[in-house]
Amino acid sequence: MSKEIRVFAPASVTNVSCGFDVLGFALNWPGDEIVIKTRGKSGIVISKITGDKGKLPKEIHKNTAGLSVKALANYLNFDKGIEIEIHKKMGLGSGLGSSAASAVAGVFALNELLGKPLKRKELLQFALEGEKLTCGGTPHADNISASLLGGFIIVRSVNPLDVIKIDVPDNLYATLLHPQIEIQTSETRKILRKQILLSDAVKQWGNVAGLIAGLINKDYKLIGHSLQDVIIEPVRSILIPGFDQIKSAALDSGALGCSISGSGPSMFALSNSKKTAATIAEAMQKSADKVGMEYDIYISKINKKGPKILSKNF
Amino acid sequence: MSKEIRVFAPASVTNVSCGFDVLGFALNWPGDEIVIKTRGKSGIVISKITGDKGKLPKEIHKNTAGLSVKALANYLNFDKGIEIEIHKKMGLGSGLGSSAASAVAGVFALNELLGKPLKRKELLQFALEGEKLTCGGTPHADNISASLLGGFIIVRSVNPLDVIKIDVPDNLYATLLHPQIEIQTSETRKILRKQILLSDAVKQWGNVAGLIAGLINKDYKLIGHSLQDVIIEPVRSILIPGFDQIKSAALDSGALGCSISGSGPSMFALSNSKKTAATIAEAMQKSADKVGMEYDIYISKINKKGPKILSKNF
Repeated sequence: MSKEIRVFAPASVTNVSCGFDVLGFALNWPGDEIVIKTRGKSGIVISKITGDKGKLPKEIHKNTAGLSVKALANYLNFDKGIEIEIHKKMGLGSGLGSSAASAVAGVFALNELLGKPLKRKELLQFALEGEKLTCGGTPHADNISASLLGGFIIVRSVNPLDVIKIDVPDNLYATLLHPQIEIQTSETRKILRKQILLSDAVKQWGNVAGLIAGLINKDYKLIGHSLQDVIIEPVRSILIPGFDQIKSAALDSGALGCSISGSGPSMFALSNSKKTAATIAEAMQKSADKVGMEYDIYISKINKKGPKILSKNF
Repeated sequence: MSKEIRVFAPASVTNVSCGFDVLGFALNWPGDEIVIKTRGKSGIVISKITGDKGKLPKEIHKNTAGLSVKALANYLNFDKGIEIEIHKKMGLGSGLGSSAASAVAGVFALNELLGKPLKRKELLQFALEGEKLTCGGTPHADNISASLLGGFIIVRSVNPLDVIKIDVPDNLYATLLHPQIEIQTSETRKILRKQILLSDAVKQWGNVAGLIAGLINKDYKLIGHSLQDVIIEPVRSILIPGFDQIKSAALDSGALGCSISGSGPSMFALSNSKKTAATIAEAMQKSADKVGMEYDIYISKINKKGPKILSKNF
């Protein structure tokens, strides 16, 4: 009989204001679902993709989840057939780590299906295979790490890969606004200056130090003071209509901080209670309505566990 | 009868590899001693300075300790006479926060003498008055904060001043080598590039994030990986004869990391035991001997308490 497993892997917010290319955290919602089944015929196929408005390729070598699952299957010398279903539960190109969620769901599902031959952290490198597609070069490990490990993560170094998961306050909530506009990740990287002022960099790593200390020590005031980005946000926010107004609305409603998720266009705001997160959502919505844009909005606690099994038949 | 108090304030290591202008920690040894006495005649005078080889001025407005004590006395409307003795127990221009130690000792002593009208953190701004002399501009708060508060500190922001003290492992030791060469602080700042690569800055704040998480979580391995400075050390180390060899000697002897203290010429190495700190001291000494330089060497635990009272008569 064929085995089957359905898993969920979380979306993630990266950069987190001052931590460009270094910080990230996972969300309880949104995220992607993946079903993996063994099948009689050998080879890996993607049998179904939903929620992508027909945009994602079913060819394994062009699909982030497909590539990641294939890399893991190869490593484990698993040569039986695998069938993959991908159910996107979030918009593509949102800046919320959509492709990372699919890749993580894929490798997590296959590892579970095969009886957990690898530890969670060992799956990182295989999920990264998929990310190479999105960025067209050395993949950034931030979305993958946050989605796979859950919680708040530091990518201290990409080469060699060194990812650290840190503890965060239990009541840390994120409010997310995903404007329905398209921004190419490659474009958002091109507009950044290659050279920055040392004095700005010092401000930034002062805030990074403060943010990490604030998170681990559960010091909301310090978290709030530290959520400032003087380098990337001023450049990239230009691509997001109404950014300044929406950010002000969030801060005025009690957000600890508000910035761009990943390379955008999504925006995130952090707060210290579910109630405040909801108030912030309302304020951000009102402000986005004034700009006249379409958007999705989410409220989520920081996801501390990473992907989870939704069902399995073995 | 006149009141009298003698206090010790610790030297400090700042920058701490990846944390240029942002991180610092206090030492148990070396440090400076200051005696403060009330006297019949009004006005503030420096009656004695020892250990400075005649280099420090006794005029209040030219002396870091004098200026700091004066600023605090003015703020507290203390118009009786004050006599100050300064006993330098460490070389000047060492990169170990010598002037900060004197300024901190001064304000700490006066505050104790007057019955602690101000809290420890409130003394920061007065000790900073003295630092204005050394840097000739906006004073850096790193040495002052570390010496005054003790422990490991983050200067998240200078304006407004936001200093955070974080917890560190109990067995964190520093080995310090102070070469007997003179480097002007103003010079060491001039040789730094005003513009840096964004990619280098990202490495740096990844390491800052890792270092803070490693310290708070008492993760020596992470501390070791994070003690890397790709921006300042490569430039400033050129001014320290034998830097590369002495650093290698420290790392080969078990140091978690080794870099420049402040703007130099002192070097510090961190380790996880007193025994390793001593082994490192030996190796650094041998290496410095080969270079043929004179030096002082110290081994110290991280000082968690800041200044302390040595004696008082009230």
